[in-house]
Amino acid sequence: MEAKSIILPQDRMPRQWYNILADIKLNPPLGPGGKPIRPEDLAPVFPMNLIEQEVSSDRWIDIPEPVLDVLRIWRPSPLTRASRFEKALGTPARIYFKNESVSPPGSHKPNTAVPQAYYNKVFGIERITTETGAGQWGSALAFACAQFGLACKVFMVRVSFDQKPYRKAMMQTWGATCVPSPSTETKAGRDALARDPDTPGSLGIAISEAVEQAVSDSSGKTRYSLGSVLNHVMLHQTIIGLETREQFKLIGVEPDVVIGCAGGGSNFAGLAFPYLLDKVNGRQIEIYPVEPAACPTMTRAPFVYDHGDTAGYTPLLPMHSLGHTFVPPPIHAGGLRYHGMSPTVSQLIDEGLLTPRAVKQLASYQAGVLFARSEGIIPAPETCNALACVVEEAEKAREEGREKTIVVSFSGHGLLDLGAYEKYLAGQLTDVGMSEEQLAEAMDTVKDYPRPAHLKIR
Amino acid sequence: MEAKSIILPQDRMPRQWYNILADIKLNPPLGPGGKPIRPEDLAPVFPMNLIEQEVSSDRWIDIPEPVLDVLRIWRPSPLTRASRFEKALGTPARIYFKNESVSPPGSHKPNTAVPQAYYNKVFGIERITTETGAGQWGSALAFACAQFGLACKVFMVRVSFDQKPYRKAMMQTWGATCVPSPSTETKAGRDALARDPDTPGSLGIAISEAVEQAVSDSSGKTRYSLGSVLNHVMLHQTIIGLETREQFKLIGVEPDVVIGCAGGGSNFAGLAFPYLLDKVNGRQIEIYPVEPAACPTMTRAPFVYDHGDTAGYTPLLPMHSLGHTFVPPPIHAGGLRYHGMSPTVSQLIDEGLLTPRAVKQLASYQAGVLFARSEGIIPAPETCNALACVVEEAEKAREEGREKTIVVSFSGHGLLDLGAYEKYLAGQLTDVGMSEEQLAEAMDTVKDYPRPAHLKIR
Repeated sequence: MEAKSIILPQDRMPRQWYNILADIKLNPPLGPGGKPIRPEDLAPVFPMNLIEQEVSSDRWIDIPEPVLDVLRIWRPSPLTRASRFEKALGTPARIYFKNESVSPPGSHKPNTAVPQAYYNKVFGIERITTETGAGQWGSALAFACAQFGLACKVFMVRVSFDQKPYRKAMMQTWGATCVPSPSTETKAGRDALARDPDTPGSLGIAISEAVEQAVSDSSGKTRYSLGSVLNHVMLHQTIIGLETREQFKLIGVEPDVVIGCAGGGSNFAGLAFPYLLDKVNGRQIEIYPVEPAACPTMTRAPFVYDHGDTAGYTPLLPMHSLGHTFVPPPIHAGGLRYHGMSPTVSQLIDEGLLTPRAVKQLASYQAGVLFARSEGIIPAPETCNALACVVEEAEKAREEGREKTIVVSFSGHGLLDLGAYEKYLAGQLTDVGMSEEQLAEAMDTVKDYPRPAHLKIR
Repeated sequence: MEAKSIILPQDRMPRQWYNILADIKLNPPLGPGGKPIRPEDLAPVFPMNLIEQEVSSDRWIDIPEPVLDVLRIWRPSPLTRASRFEKALGTPARIYFKNESVSPPGSHKPNTAVPQAYYNKVFGIERITTETGAGQWGSALAFACAQFGLACKVFMVRVSFDQKPYRKAMMQTWGATCVPSPSTETKAGRDALARDPDTPGSLGIAISEAVEQAVSDSSGKTRYSLGSVLNHVMLHQTIIGLETREQFKLIGVEPDVVIGCAGGGSNFAGLAFPYLLDKVNGRQIEIYPVEPAACPTMTRAPFVYDHGDTAGYTPLLPMHSLGHTFVPPPIHAGGLRYHGMSPTVSQLIDEGLLTPRAVKQLASYQAGVLFARSEGIIPAPETCNALACVVEEAEKAREEGREKTIVVSFSGHGLLDLGAYEKYLAGQLTDVGMSEEQLAEAMDTVKDYPRPAHLKIR
């Protein structure tokens, strides 16, 4: 029989990342007064070696050996035929999942946390600050910092801090410090607490706290780290798709459909970007980034210049955005509750190379439970969104009688999100979404935002 | 560089289990009146095909293809060089861990849950009952039953049911029913509640409930399942050690030291049994089962005939036992809080082929945190006990200047046990153990238990 998992030998692990900026143009980020940001403007926030990566247009960038050495703890990750899921769906489609849940923190996030920690370390940085919502990113950075002997400080949105104590314990086990945000440690936090002592916190406030603490360290030894959206994050994640291509080569298969969930866009981009050139070069391949219908950035929001954070501290980035003041409904896929979308993914949507999809919360858990009962692995709530799209495609294949090959990025496991499953199984989850009124309100907010130029692929 | 993980191709996965009963003698289990139990006496409790395996002395037993097909979801599991852990320990020893945490439920338990579910299915059984303490076994059986379309009912010790809601949610996600024990569903449960309405429950009561519900189903379609101790469970777990041997062959290495934690004994036996014949045949190899000092079954208790459960419903089994009424101190390694030890492991200890070790709770978490920060993976509390023994051996190797090769069974991850890590890191855990008075009391209880005959290896 066909092997269930296609295992890439460790000596065939990719040694370079693919940089999509070699093949597409981006509108520049804009600073105060609408002027393009220069690399040196970002120096207080990020180490210069990462800023250079952020703006590089080299197509292939070497993965440093010490980074490969840590990635080998769990990479190459398996590419697995979901034959039992196929059977449960009664589809002629062949479904493969690229299993990023096998990393120690349980998701794709360490693919960028590890190089970010490494580049900070070699630049002489001793401490990294970041924010986290549901906790996946904070866990990944804590893990990565432990590998390179860096201190790590995570500002975790208070409501999640209280709801998910295991995430905090995980970060502490790896030696990181995790505090609820808003905290009294920063001006941004104190201001937020003064406005509302009982605030549940927000990702926007947490970003402000993390950035403030990084740039105000007078020793110059602290920097800030972001887990999605930026170009260098997308770059680091391409190891997912590069491995997947090698694995499919081993069995002589080419996927017809590529699917990944997208919050800030890094998991989707990691799998999809290495397949984009195939599409540009004329191969028939469908590429679907999937978002929750409750936060329809790609499917409903316009392509504008907007801030990456709620407080407006970041430069203006060219992206599909519901507006930086938009607060998504409380779906459980916390990693997809982001008002914007990475500039690279946004640009590719604008060029018509990607076809965004939106799925509802209940359909996502229905897909997730079916996957758990057939393939055994319990998906993260974010991953469930991608799986719901796989289900739709599998059903389409059945109707069309087509044996197409689908590959989906299995972004993470749901072992620290089982509370959401319990609620779903008890019938306590709803298809929480946006009403047309709420959507109209968001559209009204962003309608006067500056518009990026329409660019075409090189 | 040497690959970090030694990956066995799926087509080289073992297709037979190793049955140690071909190579050692066991004293028979005894029923009422001290008479040896006959296979048919167990028929109301287990399906006959599993009972036949329990008493078989065939050296090699074929793994059925449908079982292999499910095991391939995560097997062969990686054998990984813990080079960063070695470096953190400053040891010349080479440390390899056989990573059983990669299964969907997160431990080695599904290695036997899957075949048990399969054999029940082909015997025409429709529903399996079991008990679970901390939840690892219940989760594994829930996962396995989902694969074969069996109903699964888990009686979970109430205190754990309340403390670890994620375990219950995990079982439900796989379609199982999980109720706190004692419940009002069984006579045993109702009696326990009548005695003490506020009882936290115990494994002994939960076993009684599960057995009672299995044998009292008048349709004859329900059976009971046990996750450790019995011969067929040890048999199924030998796939761990058989894979490990193949993986070491790939790199031309032979281990000098084999280490595994032992509660009922199945994880340890799974790795160690395939290495025992090497030792019998004169190869120099040290084999260490590791238990918590708080529940010193192997290192302090005598080899006696005792019941497997607190209520005394099971036959008398020949084992190292602290007495079936013994209640171990509340260490967090719940999987190691068992008064007895599997008859096969007990017999091998009696023959001097194994050297049991005991470690203290704080040393176990110290080893676990060091492992998590160096190798990235957070070990289960049970696994931490084995790692503490690895640390001792690594330190000994440093003192002796010996480059010996150590292999340890990494029985599971600690992602659903992070509360224990949080307590450890906050300084709230102690070296909870048994006082000499408590030990003397246990010894006094078992001193008049019947003694098994001293047997020698065939």
